[in-house]
Amino acid sequence: MSEAARLMEAAIRLSRRGLGRTAPNPNVGCLVVKDGIVIARGWTQPGGRPHAEAVALEAADEAARGAELYVSLEPCAHVSARGPACADLIIASGVSAVHIAVLDPDPRTAGQGAARLRDAGVSVSVSEGEAAARAAMAGFFSRMERGRPRITLKLATSIDGRVSMPGGESQWITGPEARAHVHLERALADVIVVGRGTLEADDPSLDVRLPGLEDRSPRPAVLSATLDAIPGAAKFAARDPLLLASVDDLCGLAVNDVFVEGGPATASTLLAADLVDRMLVYRAPIVLGDGAPGVGRLGLERLADAHGRWRLAETRTFGNDRLEVYARTR
Amino acid sequence: MSEAARLMEAAIRLSRRGLGRTAPNPNVGCLVVKDGIVIARGWTQPGGRPHAEAVALEAADEAARGAELYVSLEPCAHVSARGPACADLIIASGVSAVHIAVLDPDPRTAGQGAARLRDAGVSVSVSEGEAAARAAMAGFFSRMERGRPRITLKLATSIDGRVSMPGGESQWITGPEARAHVHLERALADVIVVGRGTLEADDPSLDVRLPGLEDRSPRPAVLSATLDAIPGAAKFAARDPLLLASVDDLCGLAVNDVFVEGGPATASTLLAADLVDRMLVYRAPIVLGDGAPGVGRLGLERLADAHGRWRLAETRTFGNDRLEVYARTR
Ligand SMILES: NC(=O)c1ccc[n+]([C@@H]2O[C@H](COP(=O)([O-])OP(=O)(O)OC[C@H]3O[C@@H](n4cnc5c(N)ncnc54)[C@H](OP(=O)(O)O)[C@@H]3O)[C@@H](O)[C@H]2O)c1
Ligand SMILES: NC(=O)c1ccc[n+]([C@@H]2O[C@H](COP(=O)([O-])OP(=O)(O)OC[C@H]3O[C@@H](n4cnc5c(N)ncnc54)[C@H](OP(=O)(O)O)[C@@H]3O)[C@@H](O)[C@H]2O)c1
Repeated sequence: MSEAARLMEAAIRLSRRGLGRTAPNPNVGCLVVKDGIVIARGWTQPGGRPHAEAVALEAADEAARGAELYVSLEPCAHVSARGPACADLIIASGVSAVHIAVLDPDPRTAGQGAARLRDAGVSVSVSEGEAAARAAMAGFFSRMERGRPRITLKLATSIDGRVSMPGGESQWITGPEARAHVHLERALADVIVVGRGTLEADDPSLDVRLPGLEDRSPRPAVLSATLDAIPGAAKFAARDPLLLASVDDLCGLAVNDVFVEGGPATASTLLAADLVDRMLVYRAPIVLGDGAPGVGRLGLERLADAHGRWRLAETRTFGNDRLEVYARTR
Repeated sequence: MSEAARLMEAAIRLSRRGLGRTAPNPNVGCLVVKDGIVIARGWTQPGGRPHAEAVALEAADEAARGAELYVSLEPCAHVSARGPACADLIIASGVSAVHIAVLDPDPRTAGQGAARLRDAGVSVSVSEGEAAARAAMAGFFSRMERGRPRITLKLATSIDGRVSMPGGESQWITGPEARAHVHLERALADVIVVGRGTLEADDPSLDVRLPGLEDRSPRPAVLSATLDAIPGAAKFAARDPLLLASVDDLCGLAVNDVFVEGGPATASTLLAADLVDRMLVYRAPIVLGDGAPGVGRLGLERLADAHGRWRLAETRTFGNDRLEVYARTR
């Protein structure tokens, strides 16, 4: 792996620190490198500003002159009320070269950031790390390219696909290690969604209860066509919850990452509409038999229609449980 | 690992060659070793005779004199109409030392084989490899210690635990690689069982269709309390199929390994009775929604009752599918 590829990889890894907190902006990562040494780093700050480049250049200060910049996404070309265009900041900083992992799909930038830099005499390369950068900013790319957030569906299930006992008991299917990992995944999302059924059955908190990450709880949302308002008794009522009357409302959210924790009706409605991009299946080594299934009617006609949609991308062990990460194939 | 442990491991591995073909006898493996060199090998032959020791000693012939024998199970002490006691054969062969992985639980031998050898001046050690030998002869030990065969349940299922479409379509959930592995597992069982529902829905062949292993098809059996006879139209009718009127009939089979391929009613009845020792879950990366569940009513009262019974012992990848092997914990 070349030095440039290694540095870009580090910038992309840095970009992940913003996951779940930068919407509607992308979560970008940036390094300032001089004489082969990383002299400053930046990533998009909570709320989406300042941008990664602004943070890194501010930290580098005068040392940026003549340095090279590695950034996971094309620097923006548009001035906004909330801050200057990063392309202009970079030009003013005296940076001599900018390495970009992937061009910005946002039409307000889309190649114009790179062009403005080149016009000002800054050397620009777009070469290393496109796939990794897209993966790290998958929610943002989903919104730009498909007009909706990336949707992750989480299921905590038995070997036989059940998510609760026949009587409704569902705490707990999986053990504490798996549940802690769910909280980590929540922290990486902008919005967490449950259906009204789960709200009523489980009275969930929908927060992140991991030491040091308590402030990273995503915004709670409830999917319901019948509720008029989120009940004030909900545990998350103080966290400005959203009421989503339909899947369209969910898809219209101006955020990058939506984390759906069920229940079955919500899972089926999203799966049937082919709106799930990633499934996190936490599987406990138990057999429940006739409990509630994790997924309901999908309306598939033939078995062949079910094939080819999913790829087992990763598995991990958490205590006695196993996480299966499925990624959509198309 | 000591030389003795390594040799015993090889003897145990050899024992697996007899799996599915030696019942009601155990599948034993045996090495004859002289001056650190393996001069002969044997494993229990189809039908259970000759025994592993007899095969190995016959191959070693005069060279056995002064050699050491590694055998996965205590040599038998009982003369039968079908052959001499292995302990006597060993004494006659002039072997100087016998290494045994595990004593025979069969009351007709149970320590008497080792005693007879010692009485005749043969050095006997029972030390290395007990756990591995028990695992390799798990079916035989199940029958001796619990009075029933080892029962393996196979499920071919979706992410959400479905084994067929709502309309019944179930060919195929998993791909050709996983299905080939099922045939390999069939070859290691003495008897293969389906419920009447599966017989009628799928008209299965219940044979081993792997090149070179066609003669290793287990004996077919159908579980049904209502059938009077196996229908002559069944694809396996010519292979002397068994009709099992109850789970007791199944447990009473004088064989080591029973392989159960479903369907759901049969799976539940065995799981509810806590009679399944091993589950092979071939999981396809598909979501089916409201198809038929792989397991039906188990009658569990509380979620806690479902926990602690299973351990994920192994996972393997077959094409797009994944095999999860669950072992009972108690
Ligand atoms: N183990 C796990 O991973 C897990 C996770 C969550 C829940 N659960 C269990 O699942 C059970 C709840 O199941 P459920 O199926 O009733 O729950 P659910 O999906 O949480 O809620 C169903 C409700 O969500 C709303 N909804 C779903 N799709 C919609 C759409 N397209 N547009 C508008 N609203 C929509 C509807 O609310 P309206 O009727 O108000 O329109 C619907 O009645 C509980 O027992 C819970 O414990 C298990
Ligand atoms: N994907 C897979 O791994 C897989 C594997 C197999 C089958 N399947 C599917 O499963 C479906 C068939 O389901 P099913 O539940 O009807 O099938 P099943 O379990 O094959 O058959 C049920 C029948 O087995 C007999 N039985 C079960 N437990 C018994 C007991 N304790 N004592 C005596 N007899 C007992 C009963 O027969 P009597 O009524 O005659 O007493 C019962 O009606 C088919 O659609 C098939 O394609 C899928």
